[in-house]
Amino acid sequence: MRTKYLLIIVGLLSSLSDIRAQQVIPSSKLTVQGRAFTENLGFHRVDTTKYKSLPSAVKKLFTHSAGLFVTFRTNSTKLSIDWETGDAALANNSTPIMSRGFDAYVKESDGWRFAGVARPHLKNVESSFTIVENMEKTEKEFLLYFPLYKELRSFQLHIDEHATFFPTVQQFDKKIIVYGSSIVHGASASRPGLAYPAKIARSIHADVINMGVSGNAKMELEVAQMINDIQDVDLIVLDCVPNCSPQQVTERTFAFVQELRKAHPNTPILLMESIIRQIGNYNLEWKKKRHEQNINFKAEYERLLAAGYKNLFYLPADHLIGDDYEGTVDGTHPTDVGFERMVKIIQPEIEKILQR
Amino acid sequence: MRTKYLLIIVGLLSSLSDIRAQQVIPSSKLTVQGRAFTENLGFHRVDTTKYKSLPSAVKKLFTHSAGLFVTFRTNSTKLSIDWETGDAALANNSTPIMSRGFDAYVKESDGWRFAGVARPHLKNVESSFTIVENMEKTEKEFLLYFPLYKELRSFQLHIDEHATFFPTVQQFDKKIIVYGSSIVHGASASRPGLAYPAKIARSIHADVINMGVSGNAKMELEVAQMINDIQDVDLIVLDCVPNCSPQQVTERTFAFVQELRKAHPNTPILLMESIIRQIGNYNLEWKKKRHEQNINFKAEYERLLAAGYKNLFYLPADHLIGDDYEGTVDGTHPTDVGFERMVKIIQPEIEKILQR
Repeated sequence: MRTKYLLIIVGLLSSLSDIRAQQVIPSSKLTVQGRAFTENLGFHRVDTTKYKSLPSAVKKLFTHSAGLFVTFRTNSTKLSIDWETGDAALANNSTPIMSRGFDAYVKESDGWRFAGVARPHLKNVESSFTIVENMEKTEKEFLLYFPLYKELRSFQLHIDEHATFFPTVQQFDKKIIVYGSSIVHGASASRPGLAYPAKIARSIHADVINMGVSGNAKMELEVAQMINDIQDVDLIVLDCVPNCSPQQVTERTFAFVQELRKAHPNTPILLMESIIRQIGNYNLEWKKKRHEQNINFKAEYERLLAAGYKNLFYLPADHLIGDDYEGTVDGTHPTDVGFERMVKIIQPEIEKILQR
Repeated sequence: MRTKYLLIIVGLLSSLSDIRAQQVIPSSKLTVQGRAFTENLGFHRVDTTKYKSLPSAVKKLFTHSAGLFVTFRTNSTKLSIDWETGDAALANNSTPIMSRGFDAYVKESDGWRFAGVARPHLKNVESSFTIVENMEKTEKEFLLYFPLYKELRSFQLHIDEHATFFPTVQQFDKKIIVYGSSIVHGASASRPGLAYPAKIARSIHADVINMGVSGNAKMELEVAQMINDIQDVDLIVLDCVPNCSPQQVTERTFAFVQELRKAHPNTPILLMESIIRQIGNYNLEWKKKRHEQNINFKAEYERLLAAGYKNLFYLPADHLIGDDYEGTVDGTHPTDVGFERMVKIIQPEIEKILQR
């Protein structure tokens, strides 16, 4: 029995020293990047108190931290994080790591390399996780992606007691706005860094702003007016067709682009068709709806060209998520396989537009 | 107000007629396939009352319905399912559809094509979901995969009132046993049909038996003895290295294969190295462990050859989940991307072995 108590005391002391042998880095030391606005936003993507006339569902979704990230250098051998999200609800077609977790990369000579994830608690809004440990004590630059489908309320990092720590800021030549549905938002990537805007951002080293609003990318004029407040945009991608009814596509596309042209007169705009919904393999209503969405979008694109609008580009849905019907989790939302295939087609298109 | 009540009554009547206009197909009408044993197992993979000396964790995992499926023909325009799982707990690195849902395919001239999924209730053990509706009223053959990471307690199908229904049984020329870790079990495919044994099964039209036991594929002799009761096996795949410590690999591999040879004297056995764990990109302990696991496994393979064992094949880990470090959800468990890459390497190896 004595040995048992002794072991407990030794255990307590060692975990105490473990707790003490850490530096806590408050989030306020870091610069949040990956968003279009820099005002006092917390970890929201858009100041929803400023854009009062946005639909309330859209405002709520812009509080999600999709696409946001921080970067820093440290020689810590261990990187841990505590954080709190607005709620702990989960979805049945995605991983909790994607919706409520963090995803870390390290800079190498050939680009960012995956390092580890922070897995959220399944029931509590507060979570705590060690992203990676037992690292070499060399200084590395880390990129930490925020949760895609939740409001991030707070976070702090933990590193070794005597480790170096330097917040960094990434410089980008190009800024791309991607406005769209749950697919842009990141469903159903397995982790935050694998949403398609993030994949393209790392790959072409651009500032790709995730403006996905799951289920609610319906081309309201108020959204275009908000995008019009964003400065120095090199490309606007419209991947919103999946959330619009065929009628809405017809009624709203022209006016939405017209509105964008007020502040972005020459900025290239890439109009993307809806991916082929694999639930439409056998569901004839879905198949018909998706077909009409894209037909109507193409018609509006042509109407815009006929009206003299320039610098508009069009990407058809063919092959976007491959041809074997295995690119989604549920017939609607791409998995990492679907996103990998999309990026193979979208990225060269984007590069071509940017290089003109 | 009157109109409102009228609408409610019409609504109630129409949903009542919706309920009445269905046939319920009890699971007892269907033949469960995708498992090695045919005794009275419910939806378990192994009769755990018969194999009493298996470790209790292994027994529990064999109650999961991983790899099990049923097939049937119907001309119903709608296919729904009610089901109950042993518990409703979720994991933070996978989707509820994978662990607790169903995944449906339809037979086409070029193979099975994805049709839809059944999404589980997030909190209750009982769920109900329409897999696909609005289908053409032509007779199609459906393949329905069971949940990968839960005990399935019961299920029943719902089809149109006057639809045809014929249970079917798939005939296979080849039977392959895949014994392994969570990766074989299916973590972290996005849905049940995308676990790698299921992908290979559809692709080469073989009976590929999922004997994944998440976290517990430790090559106990009792497991080999259980596998020895399986008849007419064309290939045994050992993908269990990820769950064994480097020491266990050294201590158990030779004896495990020796045991298998008592009942399967000439059956080809494919020894697979552990995939490269991407958490080991920076976690040096993990990197070292994985390296030692595989080095030791290779040494045992060579010891088996030197001892005169024949028909042993060895698959190294190189490139198994690709070279961009983006094939896992958490540094350990392959996503659909990881599995797609694994299959590209494993499947030709299996076909080569089977064609000898």
